[in-house]
Amino acid sequence: MTKKYSLLTVGNAIIDILVNVEEEFLVQQKLDKSAMLLIDAEQNKNLYAKVSGATEISGGSAANTAVAFGKFGGSTSYIGSIAKDQFGTIFTHDMHAANVDYNPVYVSGKPTSQSIILVTPDGERTMNTYLGASLDLAPEHIVDAQILDAKVIYFEGYLWYQPPARAAFGYIADLVKNTDIKISVSLADQFCVDNFRDDFTALIADGTIEIIFGNEDEINALYETKDFDEAMRANAKTGVLSFITRGDKGAVVQKGDYYKAVDVEPVAHIVDLSGGGDIFAAGALFGLDKGLSLEDCASLGCVAAREVIQTVGSHTRVDMVQVAKAAGLL
Amino acid sequence: MTKKYSLLTVGNAIIDILVNVEEEFLVQQKLDKSAMLLIDAEQNKNLYAKVSGATEISGGSAANTAVAFGKFGGSTSYIGSIAKDQFGTIFTHDMHAANVDYNPVYVSGKPTSQSIILVTPDGERTMNTYLGASLDLAPEHIVDAQILDAKVIYFEGYLWYQPPARAAFGYIADLVKNTDIKISVSLADQFCVDNFRDDFTALIADGTIEIIFGNEDEINALYETKDFDEAMRANAKTGVLSFITRGDKGAVVQKGDYYKAVDVEPVAHIVDLSGGGDIFAAGALFGLDKGLSLEDCASLGCVAAREVIQTVGSHTRVDMVQVAKAAGLL
Repeated sequence: MTKKYSLLTVGNAIIDILVNVEEEFLVQQKLDKSAMLLIDAEQNKNLYAKVSGATEISGGSAANTAVAFGKFGGSTSYIGSIAKDQFGTIFTHDMHAANVDYNPVYVSGKPTSQSIILVTPDGERTMNTYLGASLDLAPEHIVDAQILDAKVIYFEGYLWYQPPARAAFGYIADLVKNTDIKISVSLADQFCVDNFRDDFTALIADGTIEIIFGNEDEINALYETKDFDEAMRANAKTGVLSFITRGDKGAVVQKGDYYKAVDVEPVAHIVDLSGGGDIFAAGALFGLDKGLSLEDCASLGCVAAREVIQTVGSHTRVDMVQVAKAAGLL
Repeated sequence: MTKKYSLLTVGNAIIDILVNVEEEFLVQQKLDKSAMLLIDAEQNKNLYAKVSGATEISGGSAANTAVAFGKFGGSTSYIGSIAKDQFGTIFTHDMHAANVDYNPVYVSGKPTSQSIILVTPDGERTMNTYLGASLDLAPEHIVDAQILDAKVIYFEGYLWYQPPARAAFGYIADLVKNTDIKISVSLADQFCVDNFRDDFTALIADGTIEIIFGNEDEINALYETKDFDEAMRANAKTGVLSFITRGDKGAVVQKGDYYKAVDVEPVAHIVDLSGGGDIFAAGALFGLDKGLSLEDCASLGCVAAREVIQTVGSHTRVDMVQVAKAAGLL
């Protein structure tokens, strides 16, 4: 049976509010650079009042991955909750425009989630997320048929902060147990890993999570070390298929004894790292779907991420199939 | 007495929804390239469903001018009506973040106005504006003290489409009659000039409008000719101070017998012409406020416009004072 979706992603449906700031601003506001901080409505209002020149664009880690996967020509769907407001309209529009089969889950009482993303001159982004409607995603919103029609289901690690969303993960994991549907999780950021290390390692150990995505900081956090090689040695023992990004050093793909590092062509000018990891995941997952070698999957992830960091926001503006072909990967 | 505002602008408060499209799309949708088309809620919904990869950013012609004037360090204020919704929040934030003294005029029953701007590969933009809350700006929203505290009041020509806003213009024009407050108007686009030619020419003839801003197409439309020189000869007779932009040929400033053309340094890559005219006006008006020669005012307009067309959206992202200094104009 042919599945309807090569990839289904689940995450917080968010509108990104992108702002350029100097390094100094992060210091003044006592913000951890490159991290994602959860803020409340009041903090959101206060921070918003202090920044200027914003651009609004659809975001959300797993949503970015679905959009990019669709741009490669892959069949994809998404699960995330929004409100019936202008940000919700933007979010739904952008998913549909990217050919993502998104059936909005509307919840009431909170606005659509938003994230003020502070972009420093080096392209790093520090995210300040005010979770609204996306917080309410829960098992009751999961449609079994949609889940069972997917080959791979990808969850953003940020969902672990939300008990109802963790319950939705559990529900889905039970549903796909003993099927050939694979579960993939992004490690989100190092603080997320610090908070939910035990849960992540248990889910990897018992084979529930079969594919992980992360960067150096995150994999180090997972194994509580600052030594990347040590982290990867520990990770090898789990047998989980792992794609680890390393910035301008490219990426590493690992599964048990298999370990391969791939390079990435340098970028003349990094504009905004937003979405880099999300789009890397889309490239690697699309490669897997097309039956590429693990090494080529990692390269396709790098090629995709390389495009998005040269543009403002978390979406590529070029023909990704062309880019992949130019790199000799498709 | 020192005035609080060197510039007060009045216009439609709009959120721009920027989308990249191919030329072909304009043909398919039967759209007049580079024009501003007014659309209704239904057309807005249909067009929005057909485009992808949107970026939302504050816009509105006269609002862009106020923001850019503020970036030069000028004291400025703005009048325009919005709704209490997410787009209204974005609009207000962006005005305040740019140091524009904006006291939101809230109206109910319609969403904050929005414009789907189709940007073609040559950087030209074709605007499809769904006017909501900004339509209701009317004389009752005008605060006399704010008007009388301005040196120059700038109106976007688009307001002429709206009878209540035209009435607000009339109210303000009466209020400032026999004061040293100057009224300036942008010609908006050639269709706007075609529609309201008689009103514009009468207001110029009787000295109500003392400064006009436009481009070649618009000044030609004002004098119903396709010959720019002929248009400018006719315009000279009115004695109105006129700043006319000519794309990569720079700009012309004229007042009676005085006529001066200024060049603009070529741009390697035009990204998006959105806001070019609006930011030109900010530069020229800031120059006037600083007592620069008319020629230098036109040059300052060109230098400012040159920056904005190299970025997505209608706002410059660089230090405009630095740019002006580098050009030897401040």
